[in-house]
Formats: sequence, structure tokens, C-alpha cells
Amino acid sequence: MKADIHAIDSTCALLAKLRREAPLVHCMTNAVVTGYTANALLALGAAPAMIHDPEETAQFAAIAGALLVNIGTLTQDQAAAMRAAVAAANQAGRPWVLDPVAVGFLSFRTTVAAELKRKGPAIIRGNASEIIALAGFKATARGVDSTAAVSEARETAELLVEQTGAAVLVTGEVDVAVAPGREAVSIANGHAMMTRVTGVGCAQGAIAAAFAAVAESPFDAAVAAALVMGVAGEMAYETAKRPGAYQIALLDALDAVDEAALRARGKTFA
Amino acid sequence: MKADIHAIDSTCALLAKLRREAPLVHCMTNAVVTGYTANALLALGAAPAMIHDPEETAQFAAIAGALLVNIGTLTQDQAAAMRAAVAAANQAGRPWVLDPVAVGFLSFRTTVAAELKRKGPAIIRGNASEIIALAGFKATARGVDSTAAVSEARETAELLVEQTGAAVLVTGEVDVAVAPGREAVSIANGHAMMTRVTGVGCAQGAIAAAFAAVAESPFDAAVAAALVMGVAGEMAYETAKRPGAYQIALLDALDAVDEAALRARGKTFA
Amino acid sequence: MKADIHAIDSTCALLAKLRREAPLVHCMTNAVVTGYTANALLALGAAPAMIHDPEETAQFAAIAGALLVNIGTLTQDQAAAMRAAVAAANQAGRPWVLDPVAVGFLSFRTTVAAELKRKGPAIIRGNASEIIALAGFKATARGVDSTAAVSEARETAELLVEQTGAAVLVTGEVDVAVAPGREAVSIANGHAMMTRVTGVGCAQGAIAAAFAAVAESPFDAAVAAALVMGVAGEMAYETAKRPGAYQIALLDALDAVDEAALRARGKTFA
Repeated sequence: MKADIHAIDSTCALLAKLRREAPLVHCMTNAVVTGYTANALLALGAAPAMIHDPEETAQFAAIAGALLVNIGTLTQDQAAAMRAAVAAANQAGRPWVLDPVAVGFLSFRTTVAAELKRKGPAIIRGNASEIIALAGFKATARGVDSTAAVSEARETAELLVEQTGAAVLVTGEVDVAVAPGREAVSIANGHAMMTRVTGVGCAQGAIAAAFAAVAESPFDAAVAAALVMGVAGEMAYETAKRPGAYQIALLDALDAVDEAALRARGKTFA
Repeated sequence: MKADIHAIDSTCALLAKLRREAPLVHCMTNAVVTGYTANALLALGAAPAMIHDPEETAQFAAIAGALLVNIGTLTQDQAAAMRAAVAAANQAGRPWVLDPVAVGFLSFRTTVAAELKRKGPAIIRGNASEIIALAGFKATARGVDSTAAVSEARETAELLVEQTGAAVLVTGEVDVAVAPGREAVSIANGHAMMTRVTGVGCAQGAIAAAFAAVAESPFDAAVAAALVMGVAGEMAYETAKRPGAYQIALLDALDAVDEAALRARGKTFA
Repeated sequence: MKADIHAIDSTCALLAKLRREAPLVHCMTNAVVTGYTANALLALGAAPAMIHDPEETAQFAAIAGALLVNIGTLTQDQAAAMRAAVAAANQAGRPWVLDPVAVGFLSFRTTVAAELKRKGPAIIRGNASEIIALAGFKATARGVDSTAAVSEARETAELLVEQTGAAVLVTGEVDVAVAPGREAVSIANGHAMMTRVTGVGCAQGAIAAAFAAVAESPFDAAVAAALVMGVAGEMAYETAKRPGAYQIALLDALDAVDEAALRARGKTFA
């Protein structure tokens, strides 16, 4: 592996653009993290919107800069609204992110995710177990934890890229981004405390959607989401050593993170 | 414009009464801000209750001191529950607040809000775009942001007052309260950081309901909600300069705000 | 009353075991506290999962270490999912906790809670009004506040123990745990600020489920939940005197609480 300075350059440019344009991000996400996701997007500089009615969802997807589809607390009603939103986003040419939370063991979401992955997501973000399961292999996801190593998942991610054409971001101690025609990038930032707070991974998915709204390429957006969240996660630990304070410090770090921090701390490898 | 000391006197009296009586506020609000709204009411000194079942909603509206109806993540089920709650509140003679979040562009909520505004809300709270749209004019609401200036909205607010008989609170950099037979009051408190945290405006709507539960006049309750939230917003920025810490400091400021702070900081104009 | 050192010994052992095993806790809880409950479990050392679809709920209950059923914002859909989850938990031999929030005045939840209490909960947690109502007596619950004293509720709790076979935890200024064949234990820890933040009681119910996942006896789990939350509540007030900061400090205290703190601060009486 060699240091990948291009990934840092690209992320710095995208972060500046995101803050200039404040893209509207339509979040269809799970009930645990709704507020935290909105605050993470606001802290970073994007504009979140959460809408639940299927008809409104379809209307809104067409005016939003990007769409997030996170199936963490999926219900039949929400699945119907997500289908409508995805169709509207596709018709309007807006990128959307699929976050297949806890896919694999649970049957309903696994069926819905398998359907959604064929609808043209720009980015798929998941931990190793979720990526393996979404590609059609058996994995043992223990709820939302990942039991498979990211390294094991990378090969599977490449298969998922082939299946879907999406940029795939496999998250873990090291995040890995893979996309058609691009050399894979590893991002080795982050902090273990990020797993002690609910919603960090889900917020990363929303941030990937925010970057997708302003990026030329979904791959660059996926890398930016991983790098910005990872660097912010390190910054947050400098002021907060326990999980309550840490979740708040992470929002502050998403506000504070800038080009200087990304260049000083970024660990990206090709 | 001239300084309006009556608005400050009235708010001080209402705040003392609210803390003495701890009114029960029935919140039917959106999924993003449920927890934050409950914590804002508790911090201020009121007693929140969130109930979702239509039958229970109707039962509860009759024993609560006031009702909040916020349509930010409206669904068909929630609209049905809101109709039942509004009917019960009206029958029990309890005031209710309508917060028509993002009304205008999105069709389902716009239809429901147009129906609800005719059911006798005591207070309607919204940003300029929402007030314009609810009055029946075209506005371009970019999700929950406001694209119309408050000044433009004031004339429309007066029309909405005529249409509904409600006290109307138009929020923005300066908040303006208008009501039948009352001279309009402007409240020039607040801080830009309030727009970097989700749920501040929604919490203001809940606080308006809490004040309505203890006020003789919905207009005084609307002014009190604007002034208390604005002053608390300024206090919070003194201890927290970034959005994560700020959302927490704002809750602390709602606990700390008192007559001395309102008199020292309040900027109300007739 | 005499000091009950066994309760502290037992809680210290359970806390160590909980942190070693990180039990998966399936939370079916209310919409106000979902995120806070997840963060409280993570801070303590357990692994939360929230799942809403009835089919998935049943699948998941069978692999989780314990289940929480909290009816604070009960809907018809959620009641159906809870029935399925309880049946699956019982079939898999997993303990589950019933938190009958605001039961009594509101008819739908009262009917559902009366049904659920006969399905074999391991632990029932509620304030005095809720316990009285669940046992079948009339009480006047003012929403989620308790209007009956814990002392009045203790006799009723013993009746509820007879009716259900569950360990019953009555919460208030002093918490009391009662169970079949066990001497009642009172836990006199906690702080008044815990009532100024939404979700503390609900988080205590989730923590009772987490302890039930690793305990031999539901009674010991109920005592541990009361003692750990009470001691953490006292620790939190040492760093945070207002409700916004306090809710965050309480999460940090759930991370920090350990055997030394439990032994130094625990006030348990037989």
C-alpha cells in the first residue's frame, strides 16, 4: 500500500464545495438515529430533510440533491416509501446511497435490500458482514455489529461492484472504497469510541449522500465520507473520552474539520 | 418601532406560572425531534407527553393542558391521530398549536395543514415560507428552510390571522407575533447557531403550547415562546460555539433563563 | 430496614459479566427515547438492537440475549410486533422486561399491558401509579409522572408478583424490587435531576433487560438495574447541574460506574 494523496485532495475540494452549496439531503433512515443524522449533516454544512409519507417522499426526492436509504428499522410502510423515493431519484438523475443495516440474518430487510441493490444506488455503505450478505453470501451478522473482517469483505465488495455498478464503501477499523474502473482506496482514520455511540455509521451514510450531491463521482464521495468521518472521530476523542460527551464532540468535530485537519491527519492508501 | 416592555412583563409572569404549574403538553410532532422536544419542555419546566395511538391521542388531549401538532414527518396514520386529538382538544376547550413544517411544496401535508388551519388552532407558528403557503399563496420552501423574508410574511400573517382567528408567530432572524385585536410584536433575540441544530424551531412550537396552557391569551403565549427561546439561544452561545455542544447548552439555557435574563436581554418592539 | 450488602455484591458481579459478554438487547421501545436508550446500553457495555417489522422482530428475539417491551408510544402495529417478539422470546427461553409506561388512564395500552403481563415477563418495571394500574387497581397517572407513592405501591407490587411470577421493580425516589421467594430490596440511590431528562426511566428498563440477559435470576437483574442507574445518576450530577449537560453526563457515568463506585455509594436495604 502506498499513501494516496489524491484521495485527500479530492476530499478537501468536495468539503469546500459541500459547505458552499449546502446540498439538501433526503434521509430515509432508521428510527434510532434520525435526530443524530440530521445534526451530523447540519454540523458538517449540509441541509437534512426527513419525510415519511410515500407520496411526499417521491415529490421530495426529485428536488433533493441526494437520497439516503437506510433500512435499520425497516417496516412495510417504509419499504414502500423507499421504493417510491428511489424511483423518483432515479428519474430525476439524483444519486442515492444504500445502507443495508443488519442485512443477512433478518429476512424482510434482506429481501428488500436485494431488490434495492438492483435499482442503481450510487453508493453502497456497510460493514463487512453486511457487504458479504448483500452480495449474496452467508455471513453471520450479530445485529449491527460486524463479525467479518474488512479484509475478507474486500473481495466480496468487488463482486458487489460488478453486480451493481455502485461505489462500495466497506467500513471497519479501516474503511475501503471500491468502484468500477477505480483503484481501491483504504482510509485508516477513526477511533474505537465511534462504536460506543449509536448512529455514527448511519451518519456516515448520510454524509456519503451529502458528498454524492456535490461530487462528480460516487467513488470520490464515498472516500470523502470515510475520510471526513474518520478524521472527525479522531478529533472528537481529543476532547471527550467517554461516550456521552463523545457523541456531542463528534458533531462539533464535523463542524470543525477542515482542509488543514484532513491534510494533517488523513491516512489514505491505494 | 418602539421597545415593548409589556411583552417582557407578560413573558416573565407566564414563565413563573409555567414553572409553578408544570403544564402537561401533548406533543404530536415529527420523528426527528421527538426526544429533543421532550427535553426542551422538561428543561423549561413543563411536562411533555408523546402519544401515537389515535384512540389514546383523543383521550389524552382532553386531560393535557395544551396540544402541539407538528407535521414535519406526517403520515396518513399520524394525520388521522391528529384529527382525533384536535377534535378532543377543541371539545375540552384546550388550546393547540399548529406548526406547518415545510408546507407548500409537498402535497399531502399541504392538504392536511389547510384542513387543520380551519379547526381553530390557538397559535400557528412557522417560518415566512410556511406562513405564506398556509395562507394560500405560492412560496418556494426549500424543505424546512425559509426562503421568504419575515418582513414579506408579515402582511400574509395578518391575512392568516383573519382567516383563522389564531395568533400567528412568524419566525426568522426577527420573530413577529400577530393576533386579532392586538398590536404586532417583534422579537429580535436569538442566534444564528439555532439554525445549525435540528429541532430548535420545533421545540419553540412545543414551548408555545406550554405557554398557551397557562396563558389567558394565545398571543401572549406566542410572544413568550419567541422571547424565551430567543434569549435562551443567546445564552447558549456564550458557553458553546459549535453545534453539538450548542444543542445541549440550549437545553441548559432553557433551564437557566429567568426574569433577570429576560429583562436584561429581551428585545421586543411594537 | 437493614443494609443489604448481598445486593451490592450481586450487582458488581453482574456488571462485570455484562461488560465481558456485551449481551445483545432487543429493544421495542417508544419513539421519544429510542436513541437515548441505545446510547445508554452502549455506554454501559451492552449491545442494543431496535427492530420494527413484526416478522424480523420474532426472528431477532430468538437470537437476542433479552427483550425490552416499552409501551410508551404504543400503536396497533407495534402491539402486533410486540406480541410476536414476546412469543419468540418465550419459545427461545429468553427473558423479557415489560415497562408499562403511563398505563391506567389510556385505554389501548392498558388493554395491551394487561394481556402482556400474563405472557410471562421476567421483570416488570414501572412507577407506583403504573404498578398499581397494571395490578388492576385504579390509579391516576398524570401521563408518565407517578402520582402514587412508592410505599403505597409496594403492597400492590407483591400482588403483581403473585399474579405474574415476575420480578417487579417499583421506581421512585426509592426503588423497590420484589420477586417470588425473595426478600424485597430497596435501593435509595439516584438524583432528582433524573426526572428532568426524558428517557432515564426507559433506559433503566433497557438496562434491566441487559442484566436479565446475563443474570441467573430476574430479581438480581432488577436490583442491578436500579442500583447501577441510581449510582450513575448521582455521579452525573457531580459534573452537570442542568438537564442538557446532565443527560450527557449520565451516559458518561454509565460508562464510568464500576465496582468501587457501587460499593462506595450503593444504598441498598432489605
